[in-house]
Amino acid sequence: MLANVWRDGTVNVLALAGGVGGAKLAAGLEAVLARGELSVVVNTADDFDLWGLHVCPDLDTVMYTLAGIANPETGWGIGGESFDALEMLSRYGEDTWFKLGDRDLATHILRTARLRAGETLTRIIADLSTALGIGSAILPMCDEPVATVLDTPDGPLEFQEYFVRRGQRDEVLGMWLRGIGDARPTDAVQEALAVADLVVLCPSNPVVSIGPILAVPGMREALASAPVPSVAVSPIVGGRALKGPADRMLASLGVEVSPVGVARMYEGLVDGMVIDGVDGGEGDRIEALGMRVLATAAVMRDAPDRARLAREVLDFGTGLVTL
Amino acid sequence: MLANVWRDGTVNVLALAGGVGGAKLAAGLEAVLARGELSVVVNTADDFDLWGLHVCPDLDTVMYTLAGIANPETGWGIGGESFDALEMLSRYGEDTWFKLGDRDLATHILRTARLRAGETLTRIIADLSTALGIGSAILPMCDEPVATVLDTPDGPLEFQEYFVRRGQRDEVLGMWLRGIGDARPTDAVQEALAVADLVVLCPSNPVVSIGPILAVPGMREALASAPVPSVAVSPIVGGRALKGPADRMLASLGVEVSPVGVARMYEGLVDGMVIDGVDGGEGDRIEALGMRVLATAAVMRDAPDRARLAREVLDFGTGLVTL
Repeated sequence: MLANVWRDGTVNVLALAGGVGGAKLAAGLEAVLARGELSVVVNTADDFDLWGLHVCPDLDTVMYTLAGIANPETGWGIGGESFDALEMLSRYGEDTWFKLGDRDLATHILRTARLRAGETLTRIIADLSTALGIGSAILPMCDEPVATVLDTPDGPLEFQEYFVRRGQRDEVLGMWLRGIGDARPTDAVQEALAVADLVVLCPSNPVVSIGPILAVPGMREALASAPVPSVAVSPIVGGRALKGPADRMLASLGVEVSPVGVARMYEGLVDGMVIDGVDGGEGDRIEALGMRVLATAAVMRDAPDRARLAREVLDFGTGLVTL
Repeated sequence: MLANVWRDGTVNVLALAGGVGGAKLAAGLEAVLARGELSVVVNTADDFDLWGLHVCPDLDTVMYTLAGIANPETGWGIGGESFDALEMLSRYGEDTWFKLGDRDLATHILRTARLRAGETLTRIIADLSTALGIGSAILPMCDEPVATVLDTPDGPLEFQEYFVRRGQRDEVLGMWLRGIGDARPTDAVQEALAVADLVVLCPSNPVVSIGPILAVPGMREALASAPVPSVAVSPIVGGRALKGPADRMLASLGVEVSPVGVARMYEGLVDGMVIDGVDGGEGDRIEALGMRVLATAAVMRDAPDRARLAREVLDFGTGLVTL
């Protein structure tokens, strides 16, 4: 019984995360692990440029959440944020559909300046995270620019165009990742995987959050062949996404909107699925895919919830035998 | 007697201005002239880049002042401004010596994005000014990048380095304008001069504010040969600069720190000098340079002061016979 190894010694965890849901579990993992044990590989395919500033919504959501400064109501952005710059941009006649707060702007301004100076996104995020007192490593999935483009009945849409500007109202008929062919897992990601004792796929959208990370050439294979257990937490609970459009997206892509559908997307990659108790009846179908199943309360409503789920994920994950 | 022509018909005024002092008289001129009659040519040699953002302190001071949103206490920046982005940049470990407010940042972000897209500074400032409801034309002295560099005992300093970061404490031994050889008066400046009935040199620093405007190749000659009167308002009152380091700068450059010293710098260019009453005794020495003199209350403490001085400048200036 290995279930409690992580409580006694060093257990390095590599988590894969997108935005709000992933950030919550990452925060739970950071809370229960020792400083330095957690590395979070974050989707960057939702990055985009706004007024020449390089905005990284998923990376920043994870960073602000781990720094304890995230807006607790929205899950994204910084708590207690002001929007004076955005109001001024609006006064100048600009379309202010993406809600950039004033403190948040500092992140984009500094990141953009350093990117233009030739630094890697990995280096920059490491410095910003450290400045915010974060003990975990927040790792962009790659340093090359990749952009999620969604095919919809109205034509292709950039991700933030679909997600924020049009409020996720479009049916998603397909997805492609511009630039993914030139991307590669960074040295930092490869090093974190090399020392990982457990891989955790956070409850993020499997199509547009975890999907792009796995699509970085070599990444899925590296994860699948790593000699450590891998566990995924389902972002689908009771037939619905915990947050965002994952449920509708899976449906329109022909994927069953259930933890079983999610498990199928991760087949050959994960050894165990954590699902919510309401989906406990699906356990057998997931186990038929060769995965172990933990049914528990998978919805994180507050910090104690995050830490409790993180502990359960670690107990369950470290007890799995990798396939 | 032409003194009151401007009160009855159209009188187009071309004003040359730097920062706070110039902006105040420009605001007075705008208040007493009809909409569209005022064009303000503004120094851009104090422009600089900060975190990749193109900051134009003098242009923005004039723009915010004419828009009625300037900080009344400092004269620069926007009134009631917040500094959340700057505080966040400081948290990231950045040196925040230049006080960028949140609303002010919007100006720099949008301007930088549009410059990168290939638009001219003239076009951008025209749009921003219009959006802020300004009826006057605010004209950058040129669209090419020019930078004031000051020679000091500690070596050369960029203008904002000298002015803000080091608090004007360095002795100025000389000044040069990087890029000035490639600059030229914009079409907008030339057109404004072509229709001007009066040229006003605002009470800005004659070395680092008015100086760079006059140094744009062809500008001084165009002003000197324009068949309209030209009047300058002395920024030196009672042996001191109204604001800023003009007095010390003149002294270290070997220029007499008085309206006479200023008048000598404008010799061959202006037909009249407006000086403060405390300097009334210097009138004869200025007239000996071939200029007419108006001694009045030249310090602008509030909006009525600005309008009063503007009226006096217009009365005096339009009554001058160009040399």
